[in-house]
Amino acid sequence: MRAEIIAVGTELLLGQIVNTNAQFLSQRLAELGIDVYFQTVVGDNEGRLRQAIAVAESRADLVLFTGGLGPTMDDLTRDALAAHLDVGIEMHEPTLAKIEAMFAGREPSLIAINRRQAMLVEGASPLRNDAGLAVGSALAAGGTHYMLLPGPPREMKPMFLNDGTAWLKEKLGEAASLHSVMLRFCGIGESALEELFKDLIEAQRDPTLATYAKEGEVALRVSTKALTAEEAQARLAPTLQEIRRRGERYLYAERDVALEAEVIRLLAEQRRTISCAESCTGGLIATLLTTVPGSADAFLGGVVSYSNPVKRDLLGVDEALLEGDGAPGAVSEETAKAMAEGVRQATDTDLALSVTGVAGPASSEGKPVGLVFIGIAERGKPVRAEKLQLQGDREGIRIRAAKRALYMAWLRLTGKD
Amino acid sequence: MRAEIIAVGTELLLGQIVNTNAQFLSQRLAELGIDVYFQTVVGDNEGRLRQAIAVAESRADLVLFTGGLGPTMDDLTRDALAAHLDVGIEMHEPTLAKIEAMFAGREPSLIAINRRQAMLVEGASPLRNDAGLAVGSALAAGGTHYMLLPGPPREMKPMFLNDGTAWLKEKLGEAASLHSVMLRFCGIGESALEELFKDLIEAQRDPTLATYAKEGEVALRVSTKALTAEEAQARLAPTLQEIRRRGERYLYAERDVALEAEVIRLLAEQRRTISCAESCTGGLIATLLTTVPGSADAFLGGVVSYSNPVKRDLLGVDEALLEGDGAPGAVSEETAKAMAEGVRQATDTDLALSVTGVAGPASSEGKPVGLVFIGIAERGKPVRAEKLQLQGDREGIRIRAAKRALYMAWLRLTGKD
Repeated sequence: MRAEIIAVGTELLLGQIVNTNAQFLSQRLAELGIDVYFQTVVGDNEGRLRQAIAVAESRADLVLFTGGLGPTMDDLTRDALAAHLDVGIEMHEPTLAKIEAMFAGREPSLIAINRRQAMLVEGASPLRNDAGLAVGSALAAGGTHYMLLPGPPREMKPMFLNDGTAWLKEKLGEAASLHSVMLRFCGIGESALEELFKDLIEAQRDPTLATYAKEGEVALRVSTKALTAEEAQARLAPTLQEIRRRGERYLYAERDVALEAEVIRLLAEQRRTISCAESCTGGLIATLLTTVPGSADAFLGGVVSYSNPVKRDLLGVDEALLEGDGAPGAVSEETAKAMAEGVRQATDTDLALSVTGVAGPASSEGKPVGLVFIGIAERGKPVRAEKLQLQGDREGIRIRAAKRALYMAWLRLTGKD
Repeated sequence: MRAEIIAVGTELLLGQIVNTNAQFLSQRLAELGIDVYFQTVVGDNEGRLRQAIAVAESRADLVLFTGGLGPTMDDLTRDALAAHLDVGIEMHEPTLAKIEAMFAGREPSLIAINRRQAMLVEGASPLRNDAGLAVGSALAAGGTHYMLLPGPPREMKPMFLNDGTAWLKEKLGEAASLHSVMLRFCGIGESALEELFKDLIEAQRDPTLATYAKEGEVALRVSTKALTAEEAQARLAPTLQEIRRRGERYLYAERDVALEAEVIRLLAEQRRTISCAESCTGGLIATLLTTVPGSADAFLGGVVSYSNPVKRDLLGVDEALLEGDGAPGAVSEETAKAMAEGVRQATDTDLALSVTGVAGPASSEGKPVGLVFIGIAERGKPVRAEKLQLQGDREGIRIRAAKRALYMAWLRLTGKD
């Protein structure tokens, strides 16, 4: 099945928003084994929208729309498709009831305006909207399949993943369904990962392997087409086993989860606590760890020591390490160690991470941009530090340094270091 | 002039990357007064690329390509356009010389492969690439204008802003050029901003006004078409003056700069220093401030006090405030004040910010999700705190709380609080 995605919205053509919906749908369609040949963006203009539909119909079997299902006169997707197919528009009563209940007791005009969101192209199946009012729809007409999804990602994503995917799977037949596992790696770059699994990637036929670069992390998707989940599991198993064997020091999760969430999960499981002392990452490790809901049980706190007096006063780093003739300086292995042990003691945690380095754009203490030291302290164990020379601009170096520190925590928590 | 943007690349159709190039070009074209009617994405396939060119030519006067200019056999944009126009391909000698110099003394095959990047569609003007090897090009043929830009944003953006924009302005003639000012606001939401300038937005004709929501901030672009910069300035002046008058408490910059960069700039100008103590924002304020190059002179450090013992031990918050019968608790005005003054003293800074609140998803201390207190301390002045009830999910609450704290610092630094 060849698909085209049409995103409808003048705000996309003005560059006010970026078309993340097309990316989301392209990824999901690839997982379902459906090839996307074109993505199109068109404004809130019925003539040009009908032009885009005609072009898409000529080159695709499946046309997915996002946007233009709202209540205003600018929301034209239903009308344009109905006009193109020369069919009518009909009311979806359950959605209308939902809208009437929502606006009961308020301005009657509100119901009149919002009725539009309960409209379907004649003959279409409704797609439930759990996050908003506009009903989605799907239909097959004249050999082409059409799916109408709302524009806001918050509404579009669950609708596509639930009713949308079910409708597509039914149309595709069971045979085509794709099963895949997302493997997440840390402590290794994309090219090194490709090198590690080069023979598997080159020989791939079934299962297929695809690498994805995330911010400071890498992921590998392993996929196969199968009739049942059991069949898929059996076909994926030997490849997964080989990947686990070779990737032992890097593979931290077999689902799509960020490294900081896995570190927090391991800490909670082991009932241990962590803290951090950050110079060049400027609070990024703490920010990442605290994005995880429930992190407060494991992450007790941290210090952003962006100046030498703060390293000395809050972390107890010896002045003699930081300044003076022959001192190793703020960016050094010694200071990284002192920062890690200092924050561990100040916060009384089981583990502690530290980062000190030169994020740029200018060098510091005569040391080059990208030079970073990462320390790890543990109650009752000697503190250790690692020296890195990282590539990239200021933000790239900061995110890589933060992820590398989390990687060191992961190695420690899994007993691999 | 009606434009269509064609992004070429199978990685876009697989959803491996998002089409930020289309957003960038759409914004810039809007600024030049050029209407974008369609954006298209097509894969690395010559047949489908030629199909896309034919469709675009039928509905646009200007077709901009991104991607497909690299050295590999997958890079097909030049060849597809040359075939469509039925013209040849020619060598751009300065680019070839650059490539030969770059690979001098290495594998001769490298030069052979990379020669491709020096090729132009016959008759096209070259567009200089300062960040990579592939030369861009622009040409007018059969009443349509074409521009070929590389895919990597790092190469595409400077090429478009320099040679690309100059070429377009020449083709457009001086008359059409758009001049605009980006105004950045803090401490106010998008709908409140629209309300504040409602009459100006509704009456808009020339200059035009458009609002943009940024993460935790809002921006307003004011634009006019004019023959010269002086003429534009004169036409924009009365509107800008009115916006400055009404937006005095919110307008922090008349260029596209983040609030944290403006706070760092003001601190440096006033030779003052700042620190922060963060609970629910978990290090986000420190992370934002330290994204600004050179922030180390003004931002000395911070404490992420994610647990009560850290608030007590590192910030000196009185235990009696935090726990026990009748204690206000960690999420309270009293604690916010104690945190701000505590971190200011611990780091010996002129100013200090603090945040304590409930980011969710669960409530805490029986207090609702979104309840946040922000404190501000200043050497020699009484510490103050503000209570907020913020909307959104965990990440939304965190970013809004962090930006609100920076807003309080901006008010203080500008003498508006």
